[in-house]
Amino acid sequence: MNAEIIAVGSELLLGQIANTNAQFLSGRLAEIGIDVYRHRVIGDNADRLEEEITEAEKRSDIVILTGGLGPTKDDLTKETVAKYLGRKLVMDEPSLKAIEEFFIKAGREMSVNNRKQAIVIEGSTVFFNRHGMAPGMFIKTESTCFVLLPGPPREMKPMFLEDVTPVLLNELGAGQPVVSRVLRFFGIGEAELETRIEDLIDTQKNPTIAPLASDGEVTLRLSAKHAVEGEAWQLIEDTEQLILARVGQHLYGINEETLVNKAAELLQRESKTIAAAESLTAGLFASELGAIAGVSSVLKGGVVCYTNESKRDVIGVPQSILDTEGAVSERCAIEMAERIKQQFNANIGISFTGVAGPNSLEGHPPGTVWIGLSIDDYPSTALMLSLRGERNYARIRAVKHGLFQLIRSLEKK
Amino acid sequence: MNAEIIAVGSELLLGQIANTNAQFLSGRLAEIGIDVYRHRVIGDNADRLEEEITEAEKRSDIVILTGGLGPTKDDLTKETVAKYLGRKLVMDEPSLKAIEEFFIKAGREMSVNNRKQAIVIEGSTVFFNRHGMAPGMFIKTESTCFVLLPGPPREMKPMFLEDVTPVLLNELGAGQPVVSRVLRFFGIGEAELETRIEDLIDTQKNPTIAPLASDGEVTLRLSAKHAVEGEAWQLIEDTEQLILARVGQHLYGINEETLVNKAAELLQRESKTIAAAESLTAGLFASELGAIAGVSSVLKGGVVCYTNESKRDVIGVPQSILDTEGAVSERCAIEMAERIKQQFNANIGISFTGVAGPNSLEGHPPGTVWIGLSIDDYPSTALMLSLRGERNYARIRAVKHGLFQLIRSLEKK
Repeated sequence: MNAEIIAVGSELLLGQIANTNAQFLSGRLAEIGIDVYRHRVIGDNADRLEEEITEAEKRSDIVILTGGLGPTKDDLTKETVAKYLGRKLVMDEPSLKAIEEFFIKAGREMSVNNRKQAIVIEGSTVFFNRHGMAPGMFIKTESTCFVLLPGPPREMKPMFLEDVTPVLLNELGAGQPVVSRVLRFFGIGEAELETRIEDLIDTQKNPTIAPLASDGEVTLRLSAKHAVEGEAWQLIEDTEQLILARVGQHLYGINEETLVNKAAELLQRESKTIAAAESLTAGLFASELGAIAGVSSVLKGGVVCYTNESKRDVIGVPQSILDTEGAVSERCAIEMAERIKQQFNANIGISFTGVAGPNSLEGHPPGTVWIGLSIDDYPSTALMLSLRGERNYARIRAVKHGLFQLIRSLEKK
Repeated sequence: MNAEIIAVGSELLLGQIANTNAQFLSGRLAEIGIDVYRHRVIGDNADRLEEEITEAEKRSDIVILTGGLGPTKDDLTKETVAKYLGRKLVMDEPSLKAIEEFFIKAGREMSVNNRKQAIVIEGSTVFFNRHGMAPGMFIKTESTCFVLLPGPPREMKPMFLEDVTPVLLNELGAGQPVVSRVLRFFGIGEAELETRIEDLIDTQKNPTIAPLASDGEVTLRLSAKHAVEGEAWQLIEDTEQLILARVGQHLYGINEETLVNKAAELLQRESKTIAAAESLTAGLFASELGAIAGVSSVLKGGVVCYTNESKRDVIGVPQSILDTEGAVSERCAIEMAERIKQQFNANIGISFTGVAGPNSLEGHPPGTVWIGLSIDDYPSTALMLSLRGERNYARIRAVKHGLFQLIRSLEKK
């Protein structure tokens, strides 16, 4: 099956936001084996939207529309689709009730416009919006499945994952339940991962195994089909075991987990506090953790020690180490990790020191990074990376490696 | 004039990257008064690309294609456009020479594929690629201007700004030189900025004044047309003075300057070093500065003090202040800024303390932020913000306010 994604919204055409919805949906569709051939972006304009829908129905099995479901008169996605399909618009009572309750709770007057958000296309499968007001819709015609989703990513993403994906898997399975699970790997390239499980990818047809690489991470989507759903999950379990026996040391999470969410979750679960000493990453590691709500119970803080002077005076790395081994060294990374742990009275100290570039430092080329890790009274460890690419690529990649090391260590304890 | 943007590349359809090129180009085109009606994304497929070009030529004055100019056989943008326009492909000698020199310098063998990158469409205006290999192109047909740009943003952006924009402005000016300048404002909303200069926007036709808001910043693009280019610049100067007399205190930069680039540049120009004490921003301020190459001459470092304990023990904020005024207070912000300045032996200390959310803290609602600033021996200052929106929105916005305060202070000194 193939799909196209039509995003509706003038803010996209003015360059105020990037079409990250299309990126997200494309990634998820690829994972379940649906090919995306086209993205389209148009403004809040009924004629151009109708043109796009007309074209899209001719050539695509699945047409996903994002945006234009809001309360204003600019929002016209469902109106245009309803007109095109010759269907009526009807009130969706559960959505209306939720919107009314929202306004009562907020102590605000509900305008007539807000009722418009609860209106849906007759005969569609309605997806209740748990993170906003406008519900989503699924409508199947002779040739094509239309999916209408709200524009804000925080409403669209959970709706797609929780409500739309099962419907699409069902379409793919032609009635048979299809279930799927994503395995997330770090520290292994796509080519290497594929090579190590090539025989499984080639011979396994149920579940299918679909690899996808992005941003230093690789995922495998396992999708299984069986008349009995429990059996489908068992098929996935069995294959997962075969895969993990070979590359399990690179697994960090499943489904929607991210490195930083997983790290924060493990810190909270193990009740371990952490502090970071950051040179080339300059606060990026702490800041990434700081983005997670509730992280203040485990993130004590850290020091950005961009200069040797601050490594010595603020963190307490002995001058002799800086003189003999240099700031970009295993010894310095370990000193930084151990001292930051003590200084912040934390269970875990992590450190990043290296060469962001563009110039070399202490004779080390850009991309040379040492990550130190000190956990409670366990012996400290340090890892050296040789990262390629630009300054900020190296910084971001170093933080990901740090998170992965942290996850691996917490899982072992 | 209206435009559409066609991005070519299967990596976009797999969700590996977002189409940030379209966002960038849309923003820049809006600034010079060109309306963008459509974005398109297709994979590396000649038939679908030809379809898109055929449709686009019928309806758009300007068609911008990004991507597909690389060395592999998947890259077929120029081949497809040449075929569609019935033109030949020819070798661009300056580009070939630069590619050859690159391989000699790198000590690597140049493959035949790399020669392919220097091939251009006959009769096109060729844009030399200063940040990569594949040149860009401009081709005018009876009805439409085609612009071909490389896909990597770091190659595409400077080429568009430096080479393509003057050509498009010339098209807009119908032969008369059109020049333009972007004024960048912070700390003022789009609606307020427009109200304060409404009479100028309404009455000024040369230069035109085009406002654009995104991400907490507002820009004004002034575009002037005159047979004599110097006169066109004078028209811009005159209007700029009128605007700045009213809202000059919110100006932070011109053209492509960003808050963080401008702050780094001023720190370097004034030879002022800086250290940051960060609570809710958790290292984001230091990390943003750390993204700028060469910033190590002015960024000393900082402390992420996520807990009251670390504000006291690592930075030295007196317990009495934390007890009586709290961590989210003017006094705490100023203490943090002054003490971090001393601790890192820097000229400037900046601090961020507040409530990221989702929960309240010390009775303050999420979005309450104090920013402290201490510069040399000048009296310290602190600024309170009441930011709306989600946790990470508040953190990012707080960092922008900090950068803006820093810029204002450095400009005054």
